[in-house]
Amino acid sequence: MDYTKLSSYVDSRKQEYLNELSRMIRIESISADLSKKVEMVRCAEAVSGLMREAGIENVKPFETEGNPLVYGEYIHAGDNPTVLVYGHYDVQPVDPLSEWETPPFEATMRGDDLYARGSSDDKGQLFMHLKAFEAFGKLNEKIPVNLKYIFEGEEEIGSIHLEPFIRSHKDLLKADVVVISDTAMYGRDMPTICYGLRGMAYLELSVSNSTIDLHSGSFGGAIENPVHVLADIVSRLHDRYGRVAIPHFYDDVVEVSKEEREEIARLPYSDGEFLRQSGALATYGEYGFSTNERLWIRPTLDVNGIYGGFTGEGAKTIIPSKATAKVSMRLVPNQKSEKILGLFESFINQIAPPTVKVTVKKMHSGEPALTPIDHPAVKAASAALEHVFGRKPYFIREGGSIPEVLTFQQILGAPVVLLGFGLPDENSHAPNEHIYLRHFYDGIKTLAIFYEKLSM
Amino acid sequence: MDYTKLSSYVDSRKQEYLNELSRMIRIESISADLSKKVEMVRCAEAVSGLMREAGIENVKPFETEGNPLVYGEYIHAGDNPTVLVYGHYDVQPVDPLSEWETPPFEATMRGDDLYARGSSDDKGQLFMHLKAFEAFGKLNEKIPVNLKYIFEGEEEIGSIHLEPFIRSHKDLLKADVVVISDTAMYGRDMPTICYGLRGMAYLELSVSNSTIDLHSGSFGGAIENPVHVLADIVSRLHDRYGRVAIPHFYDDVVEVSKEEREEIARLPYSDGEFLRQSGALATYGEYGFSTNERLWIRPTLDVNGIYGGFTGEGAKTIIPSKATAKVSMRLVPNQKSEKILGLFESFINQIAPPTVKVTVKKMHSGEPALTPIDHPAVKAASAALEHVFGRKPYFIREGGSIPEVLTFQQILGAPVVLLGFGLPDENSHAPNEHIYLRHFYDGIKTLAIFYEKLSM
Repeated sequence: MDYTKLSSYVDSRKQEYLNELSRMIRIESISADLSKKVEMVRCAEAVSGLMREAGIENVKPFETEGNPLVYGEYIHAGDNPTVLVYGHYDVQPVDPLSEWETPPFEATMRGDDLYARGSSDDKGQLFMHLKAFEAFGKLNEKIPVNLKYIFEGEEEIGSIHLEPFIRSHKDLLKADVVVISDTAMYGRDMPTICYGLRGMAYLELSVSNSTIDLHSGSFGGAIENPVHVLADIVSRLHDRYGRVAIPHFYDDVVEVSKEEREEIARLPYSDGEFLRQSGALATYGEYGFSTNERLWIRPTLDVNGIYGGFTGEGAKTIIPSKATAKVSMRLVPNQKSEKILGLFESFINQIAPPTVKVTVKKMHSGEPALTPIDHPAVKAASAALEHVFGRKPYFIREGGSIPEVLTFQQILGAPVVLLGFGLPDENSHAPNEHIYLRHFYDGIKTLAIFYEKLSM
Repeated sequence: MDYTKLSSYVDSRKQEYLNELSRMIRIESISADLSKKVEMVRCAEAVSGLMREAGIENVKPFETEGNPLVYGEYIHAGDNPTVLVYGHYDVQPVDPLSEWETPPFEATMRGDDLYARGSSDDKGQLFMHLKAFEAFGKLNEKIPVNLKYIFEGEEEIGSIHLEPFIRSHKDLLKADVVVISDTAMYGRDMPTICYGLRGMAYLELSVSNSTIDLHSGSFGGAIENPVHVLADIVSRLHDRYGRVAIPHFYDDVVEVSKEEREEIARLPYSDGEFLRQSGALATYGEYGFSTNERLWIRPTLDVNGIYGGFTGEGAKTIIPSKATAKVSMRLVPNQKSEKILGLFESFINQIAPPTVKVTVKKMHSGEPALTPIDHPAVKAASAALEHVFGRKPYFIREGGSIPEVLTFQQILGAPVVLLGFGLPDENSHAPNEHIYLRHFYDGIKTLAIFYEKLSM
């Protein structure tokens, strides 16, 4: 494929792309809003229509108990790799509506950006994949890889029906690599590949004594206070170097190479910018690691919520009957969530005092994910980004979890390439969501070239 | 007065008493709940109505910036002593509502008890005084002492407006003795006079970082978690001998005599009974002291409530922006609440880390109190109890605080007799509050005889 021709072609189609994307954006596909069921189906149909127009074959919706999944494929590249593209057509709620400068479902150009709910997350990025595919046909080029598409309408509400679908359609979805364009680049004009995500182990830790709250005048000082015990336990979960103090917690943590840490250190980063984004007073974390390292390559433990006793306005003098902490641990390779939950529980059992009842309730978990950066698919993505953006991509990890990634990796056994074209400040879950149009057009070009590079 | 006639009369009125008390209970006079302002006024009116019906004179509400105080008097006993009766018509909040077996504001008889918020603390006991007074009139007996009544609606939120009222109405409230029925007997059928109360210092301790909850994937591990800091601080408030670890906390604690400790040791007490009453799994407290000593003669510190971040069902992965603990300290002679609050604040300032904002908000406080047990009013109360219950009363202290006690003692210069008819396991600040009906009826008799004995 002639990349210059591709580029001219995409540039010549800008206005049409915007018109088509605007039509999809107009459908209010808010998955969290149960009154939008009809819009969800309409949006799935709109996606199917765009897929068929682009030349994708066997396009069909799969009904679920929630919103439909849309599948399509184009399998004409013989032994060349098969790529599964994942995206989602549902969007976040728009409240508070009053903070939108223009109506959320009317795509509006302002400056270099297109403003609308879903413009970046993820209608805009899903659309880029369809247009990358379409370009081959329009330019009379053969599609260089086998392609499969799976688009869901429940990403913003936990992808409830995706995992069972993947599990029951393993053969249909079988692929050599999964590509997801639903993440952010490290910054403007900074092509980025995300190659690692942290996993998660979530649990509830409770301390109880009496079955009822007791008057602190009548009982205070003579029985154990569950809040005190919970505080003692929580305070023992970290040491004074910011490390998680659970024995063997770090046993399976892969030590990140000097080279990778140097790469991370080379990324543009400023404390000021980080503190502005977080609103926190100071950076703080594990001794001996930078902020990005703490977020990406080190596991953490955080209490996400704590409650017990009287939590209203004013004062109430009771010994709470119970106190509870919601605890999550972010995991890194090769920690296993089940093992970590077990270590947590053992530690708690070991330090729990005999005066109260201490319980650990395991909740959900997911494994960390790492795509080898020397995988051919990552190299193809890297080459495509470098060609279009004129510079080598940044390789980053992300501190959060994308449960779909693990689902695909685990069930399909295929690596996942996170090739996102959003930006961290594009308000993907807030009012005034937008997408930087240069990334939108360049993304289409990058994806087409990525398919080509994959086949080489 | 013929005590047999009195007893028959009270017994003949049981059903009416319950009906009248139930009407007062129905008014949801939760002083901590600012949405109940109207109910507070309605309850003050209901109390006034009951006072007038009983024959009390000059009944009138005194407006405050908070809830009204209700005053009344009956001054027809010449040089005989003047008794000031204090009670409160406000009640504790009812949460958690789901734990109530019957609705908190519908008085319900179960077994030998009447269940409802306020049945024991303090509507039920306030009501007993009105009925003791009423009995004299109904039996055509002369009221043997001069009586004054002051009922407030803010006891459960620190009696904020009582002290200034007493201060500015010293002459109106002038009395030889103050009687308060808002405490518990040592056990069923165990008449009790309480001669000592702990004081109280209440505050709110908060730790905050960012102004908003943050995604724990994007920020977890790289900024300080306010819940962790709060847990660290709380865990440092006690040492491993159960002592409060605030420097100089014990400096002003009066060492209790060997004789008084021996008296305390002679009181019936069993761990089994204490654990049954409290529902706690074990006794626990300051090293070197018995349960009653821990409750009565030693100061304590308890977290009454803790909250921060996500406290709903399920899981949410955030770094809470803020975490708060409600903290109360029970004080003993001669600790001073202001000094203790100051010591607490200094200690927190000393140990607060530089990564977050830590604040201490002082709330209400009250001083500990002791009444001489050889005072004539104490002797009259003792005789009345012995007559009705058929045995000499127990002399105890109480672990709770009644800040009014010290206020009355200090401003009016009158001793306070604590003649309570509640029981330690009546859940006065918890769901399913109740009152033992035999004590309720016997209390009415005792109070009437107490007035009589006082005049002798």
